[in-house]
Amino acid sequence: MNIALKITYDGKNFCGWQKQPSKRSVQEEIEKAIFLAFNKTVNLEGSGRTDSGVHAMGQVANFEIDENLSTATLPRAINYYLPEDIKVIEAKEVSSDFNARFSAKEKTYIYKFYASRFELPLKQGRELRVNDYVDVSLMQKALKYIIGEKDFRSFCAKKSGKTNFVRKIISAKINVVSDFEYELEITGNGFLYNMVRIIMGTLLMVGYSKWKIDDIKAIIDAKDRTKAGKTMPAYALYLKEVKYN
Amino acid sequence: MNIALKITYDGKNFCGWQKQPSKRSVQEEIEKAIFLAFNKTVNLEGSGRTDSGVHAMGQVANFEIDENLSTATLPRAINYYLPEDIKVIEAKEVSSDFNARFSAKEKTYIYKFYASRFELPLKQGRELRVNDYVDVSLMQKALKYIIGEKDFRSFCAKKSGKTNFVRKIISAKINVVSDFEYELEITGNGFLYNMVRIIMGTLLMVGYSKWKIDDIKAIIDAKDRTKAGKTMPAYALYLKEVKYN
Repeated sequence: MNIALKITYDGKNFCGWQKQPSKRSVQEEIEKAIFLAFNKTVNLEGSGRTDSGVHAMGQVANFEIDENLSTATLPRAINYYLPEDIKVIEAKEVSSDFNARFSAKEKTYIYKFYASRFELPLKQGRELRVNDYVDVSLMQKALKYIIGEKDFRSFCAKKSGKTNFVRKIISAKINVVSDFEYELEITGNGFLYNMVRIIMGTLLMVGYSKWKIDDIKAIIDAKDRTKAGKTMPAYALYLKEVKYN
Repeated sequence: MNIALKITYDGKNFCGWQKQPSKRSVQEEIEKAIFLAFNKTVNLEGSGRTDSGVHAMGQVANFEIDENLSTATLPRAINYYLPEDIKVIEAKEVSSDFNARFSAKEKTYIYKFYASRFELPLKQGRELRVNDYVDVSLMQKALKYIIGEKDFRSFCAKKSGKTNFVRKIISAKINVVSDFEYELEITGNGFLYNMVRIIMGTLLMVGYSKWKIDDIKAIIDAKDRTKAGKTMPAYALYLKEVKYN
C-alpha cells in the first residue's frame, strides 16, 4: 500500500529534510522509525526538501510498503520510535500513483518576525527580530509584485542547480499577529532554493525604506540574485501546509 | 533615583523570580547585571514571584540607586551583562514611593494550550497539550464564576503561607488563536500561589465534561483546595503585563 504522512518537526537540530551521510535528517529519522515499527525498509518521499533549521507544521511524505497497515494506529506506532522533535500527526492510504513531491499542487510557508529594539528570549530561535522602525505596511504593499507566475531567478540561491525558475505565487500577505508581531504567509505551486528567505530579506529593505516598493518589480525583472536582499535565517521559516488534489 | 524595569524572560532554566541560595533566579541574575554595569549593589523588587518555569513577557521590578542614570540607555547597559534568557525591554524613572509589588494594581497572566492527539514539537515546553475531544466553549462558559471579588482558597496551593484569600478577578476569557490553539487570559488585582495553574486544571475538567459548568461555583464556595482540579504545569504560564496607576 501507498501511505501519505503529515509530519511536524522542530528543524533546529536537523541538517534538513533530506538524508545526508553522517548528518541528522528528518527523512532518515522517520525511515528508521518505520523500520523499527514494521521491520521494513522504506523510501520516504517528502513534498520537498526543507533546509537545515527550517521547521514544519505540515510536511507531507509518502512511502510504499508491502504490508496491510491500519492508518488509524500508524501515527502512534511510528511516533513511538521517533525523537521528540518530529511527530507524525496523520496517516492516510493514497492511490498508487500518489507521490508527495510530484503530486503537490500548492505549498504554504510562513516566515515569523517581530519588531523590537531587543531580542526577546521567548522568541529566540523561532522568530526573526527586525528593527522597531520597520514600516510593515510598505512591505505589505510590495507583495503585489511577488504574486503571479514569474521567473523568480532573483530570489533563488546561486548554488541551486535549477534551470527552470518560473514559479506561480498564488497568495502573499503579512498577517498582523499583534502590534509588534507578524507573519509573512506565501502560497505557491513551488518554491526555489531559499526563495522565501530571500523574499523576506528583500521586503525588509522596503520596510526599512532603503528600497522603494516599485524597486521590487525591477529586482524581479533583473533575474539576478545579486539585486535582491539578503537570505534571512532559517529558524523563522515554517512549512505550514502542502495541498494535493 | 528609583527605577522601574520592564523585563521578559524564558522561565525554563530558573528556580523562579525570587533569589534562593545556590539556585539560578531571575532576580539574582538582574541584580548581578546591575552590579556589573554600575558597580552598585541594589535590591530589585519584583511585582510578584513567578514560580520555577513560569515565563514573563512583561514582569515589572524596581530598584533604588544613588546615581544619576539615563533611562534611555539603561536597558542596553543591563542587557549587556544578562544571560540570553532574560532581557530588560524598558526602564523608567518612577517616584520614590513606587514599589513594583505594592503599587501594582492589576496583573494579567496567560496560559497557553492546544488540543491535539499528539505533542507538537514546535510547542514543546511552551504550551500545554490537551486532548482533542476537549470542549473549549464549556470552559469559556465556566469562566463567569471566576470573575469578581471572591475568596479563592480553593485555587490556592496548600503550601502557601497566606491568610487572606480574597482576590478580585477583573476579566477572564479564552482567546481562540486558531482551530486548535487557545490562551486562557486572566486579569486580577492579585493572584494566590499557583492560582492560574489550578484554575486551568479545574476548567479542563469542565472541558472534558467530567464536571459541570455550575460545579465551579460549588468548588469556589467550598474554600477547599482538594475540591478543585490539578495544578497544571508551569511551562505554559506567562506573566503578560503588570499595571500601575
